[in-house]
Amino acid sequence: MIQPVSWLEGTLELLDQTLLPQRELWLTLTRWEEVAEAIRRLAVRGAPAIGIAAAYALVLAVWTAEGEEDAGRKFAEAATGLAEARPTAVNLFWAIRRMEREWSAQAGQPLDTIPNALLAEARRIHAEDIEGNKRIGGHGSDLLPMGSSILTICNTGGLATGGYGTALGVVRAAWSAGRLEMAYLCETRPLLQGSRLNAWELMKEGIPFRILVDGAAGALLARGGVHAVLVGADRIAGNGDTANKIGTYTLGCVAARHEVPFYVVAPVSTIDREIEGGADIPIEERAHEEVLAPLGRPAAPEGSEAWNPAFDVTPAELISAIITERGVLRPPYERSIPAALA
Amino acid sequence: MIQPVSWLEGTLELLDQTLLPQRELWLTLTRWEEVAEAIRRLAVRGAPAIGIAAAYALVLAVWTAEGEEDAGRKFAEAATGLAEARPTAVNLFWAIRRMEREWSAQAGQPLDTIPNALLAEARRIHAEDIEGNKRIGGHGSDLLPMGSSILTICNTGGLATGGYGTALGVVRAAWSAGRLEMAYLCETRPLLQGSRLNAWELMKEGIPFRILVDGAAGALLARGGVHAVLVGADRIAGNGDTANKIGTYTLGCVAARHEVPFYVVAPVSTIDREIEGGADIPIEERAHEEVLAPLGRPAAPEGSEAWNPAFDVTPAELISAIITERGVLRPPYERSIPAALA
Repeated sequence: MIQPVSWLEGTLELLDQTLLPQRELWLTLTRWEEVAEAIRRLAVRGAPAIGIAAAYALVLAVWTAEGEEDAGRKFAEAATGLAEARPTAVNLFWAIRRMEREWSAQAGQPLDTIPNALLAEARRIHAEDIEGNKRIGGHGSDLLPMGSSILTICNTGGLATGGYGTALGVVRAAWSAGRLEMAYLCETRPLLQGSRLNAWELMKEGIPFRILVDGAAGALLARGGVHAVLVGADRIAGNGDTANKIGTYTLGCVAARHEVPFYVVAPVSTIDREIEGGADIPIEERAHEEVLAPLGRPAAPEGSEAWNPAFDVTPAELISAIITERGVLRPPYERSIPAALA
Repeated sequence: MIQPVSWLEGTLELLDQTLLPQRELWLTLTRWEEVAEAIRRLAVRGAPAIGIAAAYALVLAVWTAEGEEDAGRKFAEAATGLAEARPTAVNLFWAIRRMEREWSAQAGQPLDTIPNALLAEARRIHAEDIEGNKRIGGHGSDLLPMGSSILTICNTGGLATGGYGTALGVVRAAWSAGRLEMAYLCETRPLLQGSRLNAWELMKEGIPFRILVDGAAGALLARGGVHAVLVGADRIAGNGDTANKIGTYTLGCVAARHEVPFYVVAPVSTIDREIEGGADIPIEERAHEEVLAPLGRPAAPEGSEAWNPAFDVTPAELISAIITERGVLRPPYERSIPAALA
């Protein structure tokens, strides 16, 4: 199993995903600021994975603290700093809140036990994610007919999570169950997580795939033979509207036209009930350069400008179901989401 | 005006579009086989431009012929060879047929007058294209409200035509008429004609633009403020179904959902009445490498496979109008197309 983030004797080992698939470089991080920077520059990415990385980063923050006051200050600083690293994926804030609750629960305990208590909580978050992903995989696989071909976007595999995957976890589970024939991967511009990361993961496991440019999704579904579109999520609003990698909404439009089931695949930690609808989800805009210079090589003439939102919002009406570790949620999501979270 | 193809004293001067915008390299071609190769490798591309290049190539074929028999053999060989260079754009076959008619008309004329007669016909094809494009630009501009923003895909400008452009010709005309506020350019993977070529053309003329990844089209139209989607065409079937750059159909789905007018912009030479519907248009599949290695730099792990159709088909029902030099054709196209061609 690919584990992009792991704790090793007081350090966080992190696979630098910006260099894949050409190079497998593991970073050894000892300060929470380094983790925040890794999140910002997408060395670790994927909503669940950045939540897990942030949880471990909060352990790093207090690991070498000197005295209670120092620990408290560092923990608070790190919680604030990490929350500012990226704005859209809610799992980041969710993981920080879980760690803050653990911190509060440790109030009054001797300082030398606190880091280990926090570490235990981070490990629980991590282990629960993997366990949850596997349940998600089973629920999703059950929805696919035998001999299925699916279309997916971005990387939602082991690299994007604790180690198994959400949408790509369904691909894994369907392959194990003998239900999968072909995974079509949108290359996922601008950062090519489809061709760089999904392909890398699937190739390691011998799961058959084909890469297509994002614009070819329409032609693929028009050709027929694709049984489902599977996408991850960075934040799901209370009404089911879903923010995910830019291009996801475009897939939703195409899937709706061809009446191909469109499944959002995510742990319930991705649901943000404080947000009513997709219009309120903050969408990160990233550097023009990501668009203008693919893989760092300039395509557009100098001085060109880009429009580069990292995410888009797919409205609930285009989503056939949300596949979570607590089961398959169906519309109306205003009812099924609260039931799942209860 | 950008003229990607021009005749100069017995040679064809051709701007190598694979190197733009970093390098403006002009090729000097003296043999039709070189032109066929330039078409195949996309040094010249865009349906009208490859038609024009092929017409000049047929002049090259007989330019240095020795005797009537030699000229006849070379012309026939070139006509066959050029027609095999690319399968989808019908303007290629249309231009070759026009040149064949001119060749037949010259039967019995002294050999030393034939190359010049053919050259005159190629120049007419070229000049008519530019003239037609300008009329197209006017018709299209008239459809746009003042202060329009438009979305387009691939390059359909001077580089893709005789020198003015189809969809980008409408952008030019609308800008001149003070109707255009912003041109949004899909970068157009795999070969990035949007960011490489459209941006290069618009920057030269100071027309404001923003580049986006192809998948962001949905998010852009959802945000609002885009008044039309303008696309070119490589072949239009008798019923209006239109083959164009991969990604066009995906735009059509998104435009339909947002009720944004979706205009196909092309000269009538792009209409192929011999083909009833889009399903019969041959679609070129190109090398996997174009997808797997953007700008030649590998993204996917070695051994990955791609699905890389160069075009897709947008069904007539998604097309609000076809803008031609003979006016704006509206549905039902089974009626308006024959009327325009009459």
